[in-house]
Amino acid sequence: MDKIFRVNMTNLTASVEDVPSKWAGLGGRALTSTIVSDEVDPACHALGKNNKLVFAPGLLSGTAAANSGRMSCGAKSPLTGTIKESNAGGTTAQQFARMGIKALIIEGLPKEDKFYSLNVTVEGVTISEESELIGKGNFAVIEALDAKFGKKVGVMTIGQAGEAKMTAANISVKDPDSKIRSHGRGGMGAVMGSKKIKYITIDATGAPGVKIADPEKFKAASRVFSKAILDHPVSGEGLATYGTNVLVNILNEAGGLPTRNFTYGQFDEHDKISGETMHDTIVERGGKPKHGCHAGCIIQCSQVYNDKDGKYVTSGFEYETIWGMGADCCVNDLDQIAEADSIMDDIGIDSIETVVMFGVAMEAGILPFGDGEGILRLLREEIGKATPLGRILGGGAGSVGRAYGVTRVPVVKNQGIPAYDPRSVKGIGITYATSTMGADHTAGYTIATNILNVGGFVDPLKKEGQVELSRNLQIATAAIDSTGMCIFIAFPALDIPECLPALIDMINARFGIELTGDDVTNLGKSVLKTERAFNIGAGFTNKDDRLPEFFSEPVAPHNAVWDFSDDEIDEFWNF
Amino acid sequence: MDKIFRVNMTNLTASVEDVPSKWAGLGGRALTSTIVSDEVDPACHALGKNNKLVFAPGLLSGTAAANSGRMSCGAKSPLTGTIKESNAGGTTAQQFARMGIKALIIEGLPKEDKFYSLNVTVEGVTISEESELIGKGNFAVIEALDAKFGKKVGVMTIGQAGEAKMTAANISVKDPDSKIRSHGRGGMGAVMGSKKIKYITIDATGAPGVKIADPEKFKAASRVFSKAILDHPVSGEGLATYGTNVLVNILNEAGGLPTRNFTYGQFDEHDKISGETMHDTIVERGGKPKHGCHAGCIIQCSQVYNDKDGKYVTSGFEYETIWGMGADCCVNDLDQIAEADSIMDDIGIDSIETVVMFGVAMEAGILPFGDGEGILRLLREEIGKATPLGRILGGGAGSVGRAYGVTRVPVVKNQGIPAYDPRSVKGIGITYATSTMGADHTAGYTIATNILNVGGFVDPLKKEGQVELSRNLQIATAAIDSTGMCIFIAFPALDIPECLPALIDMINARFGIELTGDDVTNLGKSVLKTERAFNIGAGFTNKDDRLPEFFSEPVAPHNAVWDFSDDEIDEFWNF
Repeated sequence: MDKIFRVNMTNLTASVEDVPSKWAGLGGRALTSTIVSDEVDPACHALGKNNKLVFAPGLLSGTAAANSGRMSCGAKSPLTGTIKESNAGGTTAQQFARMGIKALIIEGLPKEDKFYSLNVTVEGVTISEESELIGKGNFAVIEALDAKFGKKVGVMTIGQAGEAKMTAANISVKDPDSKIRSHGRGGMGAVMGSKKIKYITIDATGAPGVKIADPEKFKAASRVFSKAILDHPVSGEGLATYGTNVLVNILNEAGGLPTRNFTYGQFDEHDKISGETMHDTIVERGGKPKHGCHAGCIIQCSQVYNDKDGKYVTSGFEYETIWGMGADCCVNDLDQIAEADSIMDDIGIDSIETVVMFGVAMEAGILPFGDGEGILRLLREEIGKATPLGRILGGGAGSVGRAYGVTRVPVVKNQGIPAYDPRSVKGIGITYATSTMGADHTAGYTIATNILNVGGFVDPLKKEGQVELSRNLQIATAAIDSTGMCIFIAFPALDIPECLPALIDMINARFGIELTGDDVTNLGKSVLKTERAFNIGAGFTNKDDRLPEFFSEPVAPHNAVWDFSDDEIDEFWNF
Repeated sequence: MDKIFRVNMTNLTASVEDVPSKWAGLGGRALTSTIVSDEVDPACHALGKNNKLVFAPGLLSGTAAANSGRMSCGAKSPLTGTIKESNAGGTTAQQFARMGIKALIIEGLPKEDKFYSLNVTVEGVTISEESELIGKGNFAVIEALDAKFGKKVGVMTIGQAGEAKMTAANISVKDPDSKIRSHGRGGMGAVMGSKKIKYITIDATGAPGVKIADPEKFKAASRVFSKAILDHPVSGEGLATYGTNVLVNILNEAGGLPTRNFTYGQFDEHDKISGETMHDTIVERGGKPKHGCHAGCIIQCSQVYNDKDGKYVTSGFEYETIWGMGADCCVNDLDQIAEADSIMDDIGIDSIETVVMFGVAMEAGILPFGDGEGILRLLREEIGKATPLGRILGGGAGSVGRAYGVTRVPVVKNQGIPAYDPRSVKGIGITYATSTMGADHTAGYTIATNILNVGGFVDPLKKEGQVELSRNLQIATAAIDSTGMCIFIAFPALDIPECLPALIDMINARFGIELTGDDVTNLGKSVLKTERAFNIGAGFTNKDDRLPEFFSEPVAPHNAVWDFSDDEIDEFWNF
């Protein structure tokens, strides 16, 4: 039977508890959001004793299902003040699932000003004081823990940003190559830092593994599901070849590539940072264009990006990071962006929030547009050292906007708007506005249908159909985020009729249940409503479901403006 | 006929307009809040082109009525996001009123990155580029303008904090001695800075003066009103002798003097910073214990505080400032506090927000508790120079809390809680929670009745009666803030039966109208409701009418906690 592992940092105690029946059918985001909703006062200080940090693998994590190795991390976000779920690849979801850990809940705050580490085994959690690795970056932490416990140990760790409780700090997760994946958005690293936990190791020795109720049915469904992923041009080919960075040229062409802190919709040097250029560079330098963030990934959108000397620089080098430092900060040098990506992984700060922030910092005059070296210096010398300037920057785009009185600050609910201009790709604007998590493209990725013609086509420049599109995708995403599945399985799920039934069959075969498609839709709706109720409890209203004022200014090349009325946006919640 | 003076900073034009009939009967806070409510989108960026900065003298300003020289300044606040009215003494209210200026409305943002000055005459407003005084402190600005235009010119100016758009920046106003009074709270200086106005001069030459409809009635009422002020022990004697700093010992005795960033309710070195000690020090050094912030003030709560060599240091040296740097930052040296007060006036930053902020900064470890020299250094070298650390500090208590991950941050709606612990003086907690302006003791000064036995007595440690007390006082204050009267006339108004009727008689005699006491109460209610509606439009809800979580921790010596339920607080708005 799966268990809840609970750690109380106030008393430095840990316990193993039965799973309450109301949580039994839940996993991933559905579970973290339900636990946070059940146990955390929405009005609490996100870095205070009453917030809780929750990790939960998805319903299919730990099985042989393709792309099922995503771990959800939830808490009240210190960045947005909303509920937050942030999921990541790496090894931990499969470890937790195979160890029978339904969720790990970390609560309270230590009384003393010391750091600790947690070690998770099948028996439970032990808490130890930690001093040696304090102040170290994530790569050093992982290296030290690999040396101490062996390569198989799972690791979740915070860098200097999390130790300093910066609200853009993430939680880094070791991937199968001892590189880094991230619970990136919403400042989960600051919550872990507030609880004074430098790292969590997972030793899966003796894990009983996941029991499949109907192995034959599971195997059959799994085959259909994998085939659908590989048959779809985006998940089967595009992402593997160019990574997510395939989008630079596509968004530039669509006029939706925010440039110079969201002043333009196209970047004249897009070619220098595009997925195509990146692919050729990787191949030329002996890197890997394909790479998975977790065992069992068959999409392989990650890559290994080497420097000119063929030395490893970074992996998980995503479009949103490249867009932000590239087009939005006008840095045309992919090597500088890759180096920044590596530093951000090392100090443990969300690369999306941080690149959006640098666009605002450039507008504030902290450094000139195009100054890639300046970004590297600020990352290393200011954020990495938690100087006062580093703390302003490490608080994200909204923080810099407030400190410098900037009015062009692309955030919703204080979270940075990524990579897709909502004026020229209107569906994603609805997602940014209404997501329970602040601006988050993954919450309802309308780019699929607005730009990639996946799941049909809704004209990105027109208002018609966008609210419905975003709503349907947000509902589906909330459900997918609960399965442990990578969000990119949405591409085949939207286009290939057998895909979604196969996913549901796998869940049914895993647990010996009989979910229908409607049940899954209802799960997604219920997750969103649970999250929304938390946010209302925290003081949010429809008035927070709005884009910043400056999006009423037209953006080239389409001279598109954000023109949804309040009532049109609020229609989103009518379900 | 009074006029509206309007300045458009986008086009650099100015106009003189008739007063719309719906604004005709309004003045001071009633007028600024109505204009902001009528003309500003509550969802706008407070430092953006759609916010407006409004100045309006009170209904009785410019007359011979005692203590009627307060000017209201209103806008959407960049500190709180709420509507804001902040009133100040000095010479401007009487100048505006005598010049027939009902209100000055400043809108738009300049297209070019230049600073400007405004010169207000009876003819209208002229706009000039300004470069010479940019970067200068307020004392230098006033000195330069006195030299250029003569001592009689009125001045409103921003210091380095306002130029840098720090959200704790104030607007400084020249007083009759060419010293400084402040539109202190809510970041009005940042709004003026965003509009790129360094200073506003007022040349009242040719002012027609205020016409009194019934001079005899006015004179008679004015006599009764003045006598009431002078007969009351607080306004007639206590404030003149010890200034507002009379409160240090009183609040310490009551256990409501927040100490060490609101950790304790008493300061063991209270004697060193008390009003009694200050009075003796002032007298010994040849300063003035009594001083008025505007011509016509008969309360004289201000003073002239000299240094050991008898040289002027500061005036308008208030309890809240002395409490904050004294008890809350544990600095036991009145001279250091006076020096800090002078620097804060010079760089133009709200002394209340700033001392509350320093308590949080000490908790964050930026400097140790008790480090008065450190505060002086940070004011001069960091805030005054708008360094990154200075910008964090200049953003106020909430800003430091966010940047350093502090959870004990005494703010409501992001505005610092002043000088009176809401756990042991519960009425003021209701005011902090429910004020439309964020935490603001002047919005409904329950200290009068909780501590000073003015207007009866409501036990400060009990919940009973506090909501009603705060409601009545907030309604009365909103009305008084509209008359141009100093808030301290509330003391006689609460205790001496002839006082309030005399005030109403003066208004009636001034305008030839027939207001009743009920009309005045209704005006106060209507102001609060107008302000509340603006805030709801800006996204505020009852959930924002809450004190920070840490007030559930007991505070010595009474071990009092903040124990109002949400419903009990929300009862406030039932009128």
